[in-house]
Amino acid sequence: MLGDLDGNRARAAQAIATAASAGAQLVVLPELVSTGYALADVAQAQELGEPADGPTVSGWRALSDAHGIVVIGGFCELDADGTPRNSAAVVCPGAPVTVYRKTHLWDRERLTFTAGDEAPPVLDTPVGRVGVAICYDALFPEVMRGLAIAGAELIAVPMNSPLEGPPTVPLPVEIVSALAAAYANRVIVAQADRCGPERGIDWAGASVICDPDGRLAAGPLPDRARTGLLTACLCLADARDKRLGPRNDVLADRRLDLYATQTPTIETKENVT
Amino acid sequence: MLGDLDGNRARAAQAIATAASAGAQLVVLPELVSTGYALADVAQAQELGEPADGPTVSGWRALSDAHGIVVIGGFCELDADGTPRNSAAVVCPGAPVTVYRKTHLWDRERLTFTAGDEAPPVLDTPVGRVGVAICYDALFPEVMRGLAIAGAELIAVPMNSPLEGPPTVPLPVEIVSALAAAYANRVIVAQADRCGPERGIDWAGASVICDPDGRLAAGPLPDRARTGLLTACLCLADARDKRLGPRNDVLADRRLDLYATQTPTIETKENVT
Repeated sequence: MLGDLDGNRARAAQAIATAASAGAQLVVLPELVSTGYALADVAQAQELGEPADGPTVSGWRALSDAHGIVVIGGFCELDADGTPRNSAAVVCPGAPVTVYRKTHLWDRERLTFTAGDEAPPVLDTPVGRVGVAICYDALFPEVMRGLAIAGAELIAVPMNSPLEGPPTVPLPVEIVSALAAAYANRVIVAQADRCGPERGIDWAGASVICDPDGRLAAGPLPDRARTGLLTACLCLADARDKRLGPRNDVLADRRLDLYATQTPTIETKENVT
Repeated sequence: MLGDLDGNRARAAQAIATAASAGAQLVVLPELVSTGYALADVAQAQELGEPADGPTVSGWRALSDAHGIVVIGGFCELDADGTPRNSAAVVCPGAPVTVYRKTHLWDRERLTFTAGDEAPPVLDTPVGRVGVAICYDALFPEVMRGLAIAGAELIAVPMNSPLEGPPTVPLPVEIVSALAAAYANRVIVAQADRCGPERGIDWAGASVICDPDGRLAAGPLPDRARTGLLTACLCLADARDKRLGPRNDVLADRRLDLYATQTPTIETKENVT
């Protein structure tokens, strides 16, 4: 709920505890968990935001240690200068927190946040190598490919995806994109979207877990307006194997000799469209 | 039907004529139209293949001129050395034929064909700027992105996609990938897959036309075992507009400053997977 810091933190803590009870070793929460998404401006982000060692991430720190699980979630970070960042924290039991600042800002986020200047990271966690992208980041094939090349076995995608226009059928584009990225890179994609009313926004309901074959391992939730827990039991090590059938490999088969040189080979005919 | 050159050419000619009658200005045929897909080896490809000015493409040439439409289809090309290539021809009315040789070979194609050494092209046609990728090529985000950057408004994908394992639900991964590429690049994707028995192969049934919003404009066909015609009326010029919402642009928003430098930021923790 927008601006309900304590309530949002409590709901996230409950979700983490529930997931841990269900046997989860890694939990992905949505983008901007503590504040909600539809922040009006920089002033509101500064009022509601917090540093990376503030109460939101400190709470995840405690839960990660208590349950021995990896927690990844988005929060409104105030950096050392007090500038709002749309960030994600990766919290592993007993290890330093890693913070990633969203590098591709969506719509009005550009009015509220300053984009990060470091590429989405890949981290060695107790459950395997985990990459992070935040919402619109994940639309960029370069990001998902880059994370896979950097060794990500699972890409966690905290998301707040406002529904723009009528939903695409038979699946929201955010789910289509996640499945395609999982398949093209043979990685797991674990994506957590938002629900609930915020300034009249409807959400895409794009929470899913995709396996490296491009299949839905879990989700989407039956009702995109309600919270829920999606779980899947997947082996991250399987995503190290980039082979596709007996003679192919989605990374080794890239034609790096060609991509860099690709230029238009436009004929001289008049375009009469 | 495998090896039925005359029959396959006749069926393709009929399909082109039917599409033209339905008002099509551009027709996409599958991969390896004239020969069929499941060629046993180089010898069979050499027996059934033909040069780019052979009867298959010459037939398309005549139909393109007669109907005033763009024809794009795959054929088994024998190059100047008699080496088999898995090629696609782009035939525009009254213009020279452009041939693209598949650069990413799938499975046993590696035993039969020699991969091309030129990147997938973008061509200025009477209906707009058209890019070409052949089947497995299109799985590579680099290819689809590269074509979009090079100006493709529509990407034609001749395809023969053998079904491997149980179909992915709710959509074949080949359709998921096409929709995701259309959305991520704001291009039209027109993909024509194969049907019919060939050495026991089942096909994915991935013939679709995707619009730049990542929606299905046509297809898939209701029965993937049967031939069919999919048509959609789309404006290629719409795909020149890469804006997504009021403040975003899928190409301009790329963070080129980050992608090249993306390297693993691996923590020193032991990976206990």
